[in-house]
Amino acid sequence: MVADRFSLLNAQDLAAFRDLLGEAYVLQDEDSLADYSHDYTEDLHYRPQLVLKPGNASEIAAVLGYCQERRIPVTPAGARTGLSGGMLPIYGGVVLATDRLNQILDIDTRNLQVTTQPAVVVQALQEAVAEYGLFYPVDPASRGSCYIGGNIAEGAGGLRAVKYGITKDYVLDLEVVLPTGEIIQTGARTLKNSTGYNLTQLMVGSEGTLGVVTRATLKLVPLPQKRMVMLAPFSSAERACDAVSAIFRAGIVPSALEFMEKEAIDFAQDFLGSYPFDTEGIEAHLLIEVDGKDADSVMADCEAIYAVLEAFDCGEILFAESEEEQNRLWKVRRTIGEATRSGHVVKEEDTVVPRAELAKLWKHIKAVAARFGISAFCFGHAGDGNLHVHLQRPQGQQLDEWEQVIEEAVREIFRGTVALGGTLSGEHGIGLVQKDYMDIAFSPVELALMRGIKRLFDPNGVLNPGKMFPEVSPE
Amino acid sequence: MVADRFSLLNAQDLAAFRDLLGEAYVLQDEDSLADYSHDYTEDLHYRPQLVLKPGNASEIAAVLGYCQERRIPVTPAGARTGLSGGMLPIYGGVVLATDRLNQILDIDTRNLQVTTQPAVVVQALQEAVAEYGLFYPVDPASRGSCYIGGNIAEGAGGLRAVKYGITKDYVLDLEVVLPTGEIIQTGARTLKNSTGYNLTQLMVGSEGTLGVVTRATLKLVPLPQKRMVMLAPFSSAERACDAVSAIFRAGIVPSALEFMEKEAIDFAQDFLGSYPFDTEGIEAHLLIEVDGKDADSVMADCEAIYAVLEAFDCGEILFAESEEEQNRLWKVRRTIGEATRSGHVVKEEDTVVPRAELAKLWKHIKAVAARFGISAFCFGHAGDGNLHVHLQRPQGQQLDEWEQVIEEAVREIFRGTVALGGTLSGEHGIGLVQKDYMDIAFSPVELALMRGIKRLFDPNGVLNPGKMFPEVSPE
Repeated sequence: MVADRFSLLNAQDLAAFRDLLGEAYVLQDEDSLADYSHDYTEDLHYRPQLVLKPGNASEIAAVLGYCQERRIPVTPAGARTGLSGGMLPIYGGVVLATDRLNQILDIDTRNLQVTTQPAVVVQALQEAVAEYGLFYPVDPASRGSCYIGGNIAEGAGGLRAVKYGITKDYVLDLEVVLPTGEIIQTGARTLKNSTGYNLTQLMVGSEGTLGVVTRATLKLVPLPQKRMVMLAPFSSAERACDAVSAIFRAGIVPSALEFMEKEAIDFAQDFLGSYPFDTEGIEAHLLIEVDGKDADSVMADCEAIYAVLEAFDCGEILFAESEEEQNRLWKVRRTIGEATRSGHVVKEEDTVVPRAELAKLWKHIKAVAARFGISAFCFGHAGDGNLHVHLQRPQGQQLDEWEQVIEEAVREIFRGTVALGGTLSGEHGIGLVQKDYMDIAFSPVELALMRGIKRLFDPNGVLNPGKMFPEVSPE
Repeated sequence: MVADRFSLLNAQDLAAFRDLLGEAYVLQDEDSLADYSHDYTEDLHYRPQLVLKPGNASEIAAVLGYCQERRIPVTPAGARTGLSGGMLPIYGGVVLATDRLNQILDIDTRNLQVTTQPAVVVQALQEAVAEYGLFYPVDPASRGSCYIGGNIAEGAGGLRAVKYGITKDYVLDLEVVLPTGEIIQTGARTLKNSTGYNLTQLMVGSEGTLGVVTRATLKLVPLPQKRMVMLAPFSSAERACDAVSAIFRAGIVPSALEFMEKEAIDFAQDFLGSYPFDTEGIEAHLLIEVDGKDADSVMADCEAIYAVLEAFDCGEILFAESEEEQNRLWKVRRTIGEATRSGHVVKEEDTVVPRAELAKLWKHIKAVAARFGISAFCFGHAGDGNLHVHLQRPQGQQLDEWEQVIEEAVREIFRGTVALGGTLSGEHGIGLVQKDYMDIAFSPVELALMRGIKRLFDPNGVLNPGKMFPEVSPE
């Protein structure tokens, strides 16, 4: 579909792009178009007309300036691991793939910073800085494939947010190509900055609608020397939820605190064919990691957590001290998403509430799902109050019926989430698949402000169109 | 002075404000006008025509809506401890004092959050949450008098930013009255949020130009149980600067790391009549605080720091273990600003660079000052790369000559700061007194974007006019 406000690509445009980038980086073959027609979001596919692979910020600027002028929709794409459909080219047009901007530019060990291009895999970035004893702690489940640029665009969180924070807490400065084709620098390479409006934080989590990040300077911290992982089974999911906030109230800040319902674990273990979790008679597990600079401080935290968990009727706790054993447990957690998506029609939501409301959120989700006859299970970053919800189409239900049911069910889940002081997305972003729920989280005045910002940056609305904002008649 | 684009207040306006707020909260007496004509910035005074003291968000909304319509300039004011002239009513008009919104609304011990109105003194907020074993760590030198609302408006930092971060890192959600008189909620009470553009962070540090904060939900952390302070004298200021980044490279994160030149300490000690620092033969001191949950971990950090300092030719290190002794040292540090301002014509700047460039920044500042014949000394948050610079008018120099000299000298200081990867302000904001240097940190495109945001929020430009942006002909 092409909205009226956009132009269809023509032969002249194609020639212009070839001039700008060179023929090798203007792709029209079926494989490329198919490759860039989907991300990890449900089973959604939208075919672009063209995939462009510029090699630097100037080329991106030239492409965006051209498309702004010609009103050609441009959808930026990174590793395409997003879960909200942020890179789906829903109006066709051009996909702007950042893949060629894949260099780590500078690891600054004096200032504990790294400067990187966007198309660097997060795990590769972590490993590169770890060689210097440094730590980039933001750790999405997909860190083995997602790009740092996508993490910045979506405001990614991940497994270690509970202690270390999320992407936004590490971004010091960005080079961004605006939708009008101009290149800006949003901040400075400093830990503090009260100079003008915070364009850096406006850009982080803006889901590729305000600009394309072409270079980022990120804060690093010293690499922790010791880690311990604890696996705690609960016969009651509600008690597991309640134990989470009790841990923090006891003054302990674990480096990860994950909640997983039995069904989530079963899916992942069956998918992997590896069974480190015993789910017999268990409703949920907490997977808890503590890190620190020496074994003593880490063990002291583990003991304090142990005491809290016992008060919440926890089963026998497994301690994983070796890296190998820890990785075996983490592998199950990291695989849940992939496992539950494979071969099932699922709708995935990314609810977040104040941490102590976790049990209420879980009960609410279960109640809504039961009312609609949907199978639902939760897993995720309990320490952040951030629960991922997988809703699965009942066997035999027709797709159109499912779509109607799920729309209503998700709306009810979000209403309850917001009523608990929470919001629609903790870390996946709004993108395509949550945009029609934005009215639950924001008033018309708030949405109008956000639309105003979008218009200011992107007068013709060509960059990543159809994302974040509910569909309404053009203003 | 009243710019052409603004209306002068008339009798009808006065009557309207009395209707909206009640007569007692519409102040025209000389004392009130004098009170609200200055903050802590240099010796600047601008007299408003009227001081309004609304009692809640609705009244603030009514005032702003009215002033937007009538094009009456409105300057929000908190405790008036700002150092960049952010609350100076330079176009006269209305000062909107938030003083009556002075309640802590909720200390949420389950979620480690506090919800507060803006006119709460930061130290009072810290003490209130400490009663529940909780810690609001952002700690400006003026914490005994500044308001949390002003901290949010300016993006305040302070003494403990180096470990705990700055105001922006603690703000989860804001209720804000827009310059158009509408009330919005910027976020949610969650630790993570990827839902729409980050209006929360756009508001933090916007210096009262985009809205008036009427309620804030802030993150808290567990109160550290143990603190230790170390005072380290150096015969070379440059070596002291270099020791700073070495501490972090050793993997230690102190809770405060302050640098003070001899002159700064001498001013403060003479002002206080108390002399805990021995400055004889000393060029600079580092004041270092470590905190943690027990004595062992704190002592381990102190020992590691000690080892680093020795390698940088540090003199005899003083350890302060008792709270009383620690407060005696901190008192000197907290008094520097007040002491140096009292009775002297000074220009104060808030330079910030990547931490390891501190020595270069210090040398640059000294060199520029020497070239212009100005006496300059530095102190501040070395751990953040954030140096406050006091530049003092030479004895006998005429004021108009001083103003010309200082303008040029500051411009050179900032040019060098930006060349080192730094920027104009780490935590004081731009306000009135730094706005004409914004072109050094930002390109015309970046400034135009910021102006566009201002215009989107405040079409007639009535809220805190004449701040942050360089004076240019209206666009």
